[in-house]
Amino acid sequence: MLRDEVTSSETIVVQKFGGTSMGSIERIRSAAGRALAAQAQGHRVVVIVSAMSGETDRLLRLARDVTPIPDARELDALSATGEQVASALMAMAIQSQGGRARSYLGHQLKILTDNSFTKARIRTIDGARVFQSLDAGEIAVVAGFQGVDEDGNITTLGRGGSDTSAVAVAAALSASVCEIFTDVDGVYTTDPNVCSKARKIDRISHEEMLELASLGAKVLQIRSVEMAMKHGVPVHVRSSFSSSPGTVVTGESDLEEVVVTGIAYDKNEARVMLVGVRDQPGVVADIFGKLAEHNVSVDMIIQNVSVADRSGAAALSTDVTFTAGKTDLTRVRDVIDAIAKKVGAESVRFDEDIAKISIVGLGMRSHAGVAAKMFRTLADHGINIQAISTSEIRVSCLVATKYTELAVNALHDAFELDKPPAERAG
Amino acid sequence: MLRDEVTSSETIVVQKFGGTSMGSIERIRSAAGRALAAQAQGHRVVVIVSAMSGETDRLLRLARDVTPIPDARELDALSATGEQVASALMAMAIQSQGGRARSYLGHQLKILTDNSFTKARIRTIDGARVFQSLDAGEIAVVAGFQGVDEDGNITTLGRGGSDTSAVAVAAALSASVCEIFTDVDGVYTTDPNVCSKARKIDRISHEEMLELASLGAKVLQIRSVEMAMKHGVPVHVRSSFSSSPGTVVTGESDLEEVVVTGIAYDKNEARVMLVGVRDQPGVVADIFGKLAEHNVSVDMIIQNVSVADRSGAAALSTDVTFTAGKTDLTRVRDVIDAIAKKVGAESVRFDEDIAKISIVGLGMRSHAGVAAKMFRTLADHGINIQAISTSEIRVSCLVATKYTELAVNALHDAFELDKPPAERAG
Repeated sequence: MLRDEVTSSETIVVQKFGGTSMGSIERIRSAAGRALAAQAQGHRVVVIVSAMSGETDRLLRLARDVTPIPDARELDALSATGEQVASALMAMAIQSQGGRARSYLGHQLKILTDNSFTKARIRTIDGARVFQSLDAGEIAVVAGFQGVDEDGNITTLGRGGSDTSAVAVAAALSASVCEIFTDVDGVYTTDPNVCSKARKIDRISHEEMLELASLGAKVLQIRSVEMAMKHGVPVHVRSSFSSSPGTVVTGESDLEEVVVTGIAYDKNEARVMLVGVRDQPGVVADIFGKLAEHNVSVDMIIQNVSVADRSGAAALSTDVTFTAGKTDLTRVRDVIDAIAKKVGAESVRFDEDIAKISIVGLGMRSHAGVAAKMFRTLADHGINIQAISTSEIRVSCLVATKYTELAVNALHDAFELDKPPAERAG
Repeated sequence: MLRDEVTSSETIVVQKFGGTSMGSIERIRSAAGRALAAQAQGHRVVVIVSAMSGETDRLLRLARDVTPIPDARELDALSATGEQVASALMAMAIQSQGGRARSYLGHQLKILTDNSFTKARIRTIDGARVFQSLDAGEIAVVAGFQGVDEDGNITTLGRGGSDTSAVAVAAALSASVCEIFTDVDGVYTTDPNVCSKARKIDRISHEEMLELASLGAKVLQIRSVEMAMKHGVPVHVRSSFSSSPGTVVTGESDLEEVVVTGIAYDKNEARVMLVGVRDQPGVVADIFGKLAEHNVSVDMIIQNVSVADRSGAAALSTDVTFTAGKTDLTRVRDVIDAIAKKVGAESVRFDEDIAKISIVGLGMRSHAGVAAKMFRTLADHGINIQAISTSEIRVSCLVATKYTELAVNALHDAFELDKPPAERAG
């Protein structure tokens, strides 16, 4: 078990404290106490901090007061100060409790990123200075969310970027675990606001966590999970306000496979259907090429089997359905008519009244009938499935929005997610 | 005249905006407008900013909430964020008015300092990146107050350090002028709160400005004046809230010598007198060596002529008087008894009820009788002089505190400082 692994001596533990965990001087002191406790247990400790809660919003408000569309480079120089303040205060808090600590900023650790201001990606991290600190018995405190590009400009990693900072630092140092302290006590089988029987997941694979993005996004930045998966970093999502273990996100080889791990829903997509499209090579490429040109991010794509057209002639037509974020819908409407005309579509139908319900689990790969059980469950509750898409470890169905809560609860019961994995029928 | 010099094309103008000039988004916009106006006149413009007023205090309060004695390195990382925020907002404000701008932090410009955290001294500045910005038609915005040491740690230059940043940048770029925008409209012949006839000084030498520290400290960090003098940088102290010229601080060769330029007073010193000290070699060295060991900063030192002791024998004794800051007095009391014993002093007298009144002017070097006129003026008003010390361009007298305002006003009248220099009797 992970908890035993990390209590072996001289392992490196990375602890990340989010905005609410840094919400007041009292909470910063409490977080500092956790870091010192881990050090007292014999670990080498690196702390990653987010800005104090509300601080990033305050800074962005200042920028917007100056200009409606602030320059991205300047916005990053501005917003990076939130974590700089937090890292200095955290170092002081550790020192005031008798510990040794030193804060590091993105440019001091050479957290090298590309130059995509406000959404930069980390390329490399130079761990040398952190190791110097650890060798000197210090707790290294690293400002999250920020990096530096090759020209020395300050960059930031986007909302929730401190999670990614934490995982990247953990990967660079070969840490035994990256603990993410947050205001929830872990990742749940589904949204507890929708399903009262939702159960905290003890262990989950990186892959499943990615597929459960809509659940995970509330606790972990998706990019941090991708990075943890790529580098095999175990991530422990846990509460700042208790000492109970939370959810460990880890490589699949460390896990017993569970058929269904969790259920996600997403009400932020709309469905677009092109009816009676010419079924010939290049048509689909035309449609989605054009949408990509206009920066529309498409999620599900479903193409029905071709049917003979009404005249019974050799010419065949098909329907092409896709989903896109509701926020992108204006852009879709702007280009869809030209596309429809080009691919010979008879009509275009929009539907914003949809929700995507997904079941996720590594065990689907080896257990037949999981998808069928999902369809049957929905049917038993009178829920019509409007479209289906699948990945290796996920099945998603589009249903009318009003059925969201019913579908989630019915599936949660059907797959017995309220029970510990070992007690499920399977 | 300086105003003509700086309107020649392609000169570099450095503009520094203090905390009150950065006190609100509206004021930042107004400061940005000034920078753009200077650029429109054909100058290459570099802007140095302080933190928005109140911000540095807010940050220091956060630190003190964490721990009563914060680590100096962490304190600098914390407090440097105030200027980082200000520089990004200033760059945005310039951009929002149609200009091009780019902000630079201490580490980005390689404003290299020693590692004396919270009171670091600038060693070198690499102007290359600023020149790149200027060549690209940008206004370079530099975060004041901060630098970086050889190990990449963030350092700060002490209260008012942005003035020093501005002068150092101006020196590194061979700027034609360093404009300090502040909430007063210049340096006055004396404190207007004490003397209603106080007159704004149009031009003053760096040397005089240094001697008028107690007046200048309200507008310029003393170290910035030392640096301006060393590098021959003309400094223009002027109001953020008007376009009237302020006070130009410049090399003495640019000035007509004025007999007395200004009158300063200082109520923050106390007088210590060692009575009946053995008058033999090494005694004075013993006294002030011991005080220096205890970090007591001594200002005036006056040693009276030796007198024969009461017994009429060959042994001679003398009185040694010095002044030190009232805040250092506790430390003086802690060590003075041991010193008194060692140097054979009969008694030690303390007097906190004193003020130091100084007249300053380059013209003293060539005009005899200036000191005599000061002493006569004070005597005419019944003010007893308790001690005197002089430099090449300054005469200071200690008087009882209650006479401060009377002495300042009497001297202001006597030297006709309410008149323009050309109209004075001389």
